[in-house]
Amino acid sequence: MEVKEITNRDVDFAQWYTDVCKKADLVDYSSVKGSMIIRPLGYAIWEEMQKTLDRMFKETGHENVQMPMFIPESLLNVEKEHVKGFAPEAAWVTYGGSEKLEERMCVRPTSEVLFCDHYKKIIKTYRDLPKLYNQWCTIVRWEKTTRPFLRSREILWQEGHTMHRTAEEAIEETLRMFNVYKTFQEDYLAIPVITGRKTEKEKFAGAEATYTLEAMMYDGNALQNGTSHYFGDNFAKAFGIKFTDADNTLKTPYQTSWGVSTRMIGALIMVHGDDRGLVLPPKIAPFKVIIIPIGDVSEKLEELKLSLKNADITYKVDDSNKTPGFKFAEAEVKGYPIRIELGKRDLEQDKVTLVRRDTLEKTIVSFDSIASEVNKLLEMMQKDMFNKAKIRRDSMIYDAKTYDELLDIAKTKQGFVKINWCGSEECENKIKEDTAMKSRCLIEDENVTGPCTVCGKKANTRLYVGKQY
Amino acid sequence: MEVKEITNRDVDFAQWYTDVCKKADLVDYSSVKGSMIIRPLGYAIWEEMQKTLDRMFKETGHENVQMPMFIPESLLNVEKEHVKGFAPEAAWVTYGGSEKLEERMCVRPTSEVLFCDHYKKIIKTYRDLPKLYNQWCTIVRWEKTTRPFLRSREILWQEGHTMHRTAEEAIEETLRMFNVYKTFQEDYLAIPVITGRKTEKEKFAGAEATYTLEAMMYDGNALQNGTSHYFGDNFAKAFGIKFTDADNTLKTPYQTSWGVSTRMIGALIMVHGDDRGLVLPPKIAPFKVIIIPIGDVSEKLEELKLSLKNADITYKVDDSNKTPGFKFAEAEVKGYPIRIELGKRDLEQDKVTLVRRDTLEKTIVSFDSIASEVNKLLEMMQKDMFNKAKIRRDSMIYDAKTYDELLDIAKTKQGFVKINWCGSEECENKIKEDTAMKSRCLIEDENVTGPCTVCGKKANTRLYVGKQY
Repeated sequence: MEVKEITNRDVDFAQWYTDVCKKADLVDYSSVKGSMIIRPLGYAIWEEMQKTLDRMFKETGHENVQMPMFIPESLLNVEKEHVKGFAPEAAWVTYGGSEKLEERMCVRPTSEVLFCDHYKKIIKTYRDLPKLYNQWCTIVRWEKTTRPFLRSREILWQEGHTMHRTAEEAIEETLRMFNVYKTFQEDYLAIPVITGRKTEKEKFAGAEATYTLEAMMYDGNALQNGTSHYFGDNFAKAFGIKFTDADNTLKTPYQTSWGVSTRMIGALIMVHGDDRGLVLPPKIAPFKVIIIPIGDVSEKLEELKLSLKNADITYKVDDSNKTPGFKFAEAEVKGYPIRIELGKRDLEQDKVTLVRRDTLEKTIVSFDSIASEVNKLLEMMQKDMFNKAKIRRDSMIYDAKTYDELLDIAKTKQGFVKINWCGSEECENKIKEDTAMKSRCLIEDENVTGPCTVCGKKANTRLYVGKQY
Repeated sequence: MEVKEITNRDVDFAQWYTDVCKKADLVDYSSVKGSMIIRPLGYAIWEEMQKTLDRMFKETGHENVQMPMFIPESLLNVEKEHVKGFAPEAAWVTYGGSEKLEERMCVRPTSEVLFCDHYKKIIKTYRDLPKLYNQWCTIVRWEKTTRPFLRSREILWQEGHTMHRTAEEAIEETLRMFNVYKTFQEDYLAIPVITGRKTEKEKFAGAEATYTLEAMMYDGNALQNGTSHYFGDNFAKAFGIKFTDADNTLKTPYQTSWGVSTRMIGALIMVHGDDRGLVLPPKIAPFKVIIIPIGDVSEKLEELKLSLKNADITYKVDDSNKTPGFKFAEAEVKGYPIRIELGKRDLEQDKVTLVRRDTLEKTIVSFDSIASEVNKLLEMMQKDMFNKAKIRRDSMIYDAKTYDELLDIAKTKQGFVKINWCGSEECENKIKEDTAMKSRCLIEDENVTGPCTVCGKKANTRLYVGKQY
């Protein structure tokens, strides 16, 4: 399945997305239905994400561990809400070799129960708390319809699982990691996110509260780009986890979990990409620069590589025997932040051309100043990409004061709608039935004025609704 | 299950191993039979291994990718030898949610067939070659009896899979990565390895040749610590992978694969550990130094932390309220290469005490010179640990000229035996039946003199045999 041209983004966004995924060599389909292959560029982006997030997790005191990938059915069954949420899409292992297993096991769809099983053994006194663990792994959810990065049977992610002495500490942790995600997505991915709490209906199976990062894609649809959960002592009680506190009484600890996944690559594509392909924010691009030599410039090329290396600027060189025009197009598809055209004629005047991927703007600079000019451009580009995404997103968030207004916006516009909400699931369901928009997140706001946009009763929160991936 | 004391290594080596794994907090058992939990210190060691190996792979031109974790049965069946080797210990997924799958899938025991399935799609001409891919992932083999790091149902590893234009190139790659492993294990893990080819009987299912790194554990048993395989065009033919060469003819490419796993952590323990616990070679220790403050030394502690940080020396501080003696013992169990005793009385004379983990030797140094003294000690320790392991290993390799000699060594000594071998599987089987020793690897040697140690016929190679983990 080869993609010759990328579909126009405004004509068919879904096809455009698939084209970019394929043509930028991010993924490939395989003979394994529902699973995808992450190709070198896609995986290198994930490695960049991992590197930065892992540093941020460690700086906030977390340690990495590795739990089993299998969950025996009886272990999954311990927390009742949780099993209801995950069993219907679990992949079940029933045979080991030619022997039928006494108890079937699922491949982890998430690992709360595995961490609880471990915590029960290693937490004895308040001195063992907090436990701040994280795990990088693959999880499995047996989805019917799949799309690269957005919905897949196998998902690469990280899942933090922590245990605390008090509810306050656990809530603090839930919000701390939620903020780490926000910082990462805004500062590194250049993706502005709306942050708030999920409604009761939409929260994680077994959680007391779920905080979500909602990003708006180019087409106005929402992508849930990460969540942080506060569990209270639900799981700890179900698993019988107890510790002796300083006052010598037996207490139950409080728990959190939080995760982001390769779905963020989907967000990168759909927020920043354009009709020429991928556009990578400099801070997350595995290679900041693509060098395209034009003519025989081998000596200067070596000099350039050295000066980029000395400035810690990662690069690739396209020294294939394709034409420059073809190479430019390919560099654009793959989203390298800056293209350096190293041309014989330019070099005679000691000049080289830099091209920014986001604006396609050309800058001609002197050969000796390349590294510093590239760094300046990268910094500017990072900021510009965030601002551009934020302006666009903000222009696509609508306030609806009445239900008619909400219906009208749903029919005529793309984006998020912000309403007053009474908090009832009935109103939530009504919106979904009438508009196909689901609640994204709610913002507690004491100053809410006016009634619920749906039912007219007293509103106590603001609610974002939108169509979702 | 708490370990109070570590069993004496010379009394019961197997129990000693389990004790160290548990008491150093490397692993824990879980409710998932056959799977283990890798705890923070164990996982941090794996991260150090990954960091260095990943750099070495990238320096030799390899890119990381991620294949599916599931293999449909029909895909596993394509290469006949391969499926025979792996199907008997595969974990089979038969249900997705409540629906029975049309075709069952196993969780990958290794990924040759998945890479071939992908390569068939992306390799078209000689310009697409070589393909140099690597994958970090978890594999599953349904073992009956398991031991932490050595034999487990879930194994964390990396698997390189490459495709080449010619057989020569592929053989070169097989040996290049084999040498990367050797360098890594000797220079970083301080583990001397015997390198050679596996016999026909012991080679990887589907390979033309398997090269192995054989390490000797403290008890004289062998641990296969990594392998590199040359496949010829076996898989490529079975999968119908073809490329157009420069001369416009259609050819079949040649393939390699190579892997090392968390098993290397088992080797670290069993080569370097002692009756006090783990001993970590400095280059692979996640934290080079443990600081133990004695008395109120908080001001100097901050100074010390800063100077270690500036010298890029990773450290941990044990500022718990345990006694110094208890802290020393715990630091020894966990194998920190250097312990810094920061004592109030020493500091009055501007002195601190450094203790090497491998020899437990104490050095008293002036406070201002700590960083440089630590670095000197770390370097020395790395070399000393390798040399000590090598001397011990070499002293436990025996030459057997006759079969009686072989039987006698097998009965009275621990270690490897080196023999002349005619190359027949019969002789290999006989050794195994009579001594429980299996062939480790063979060394092609044109200058072999004397007949086969087993059957007396003409020998053409040297063969190492030994008991294995």
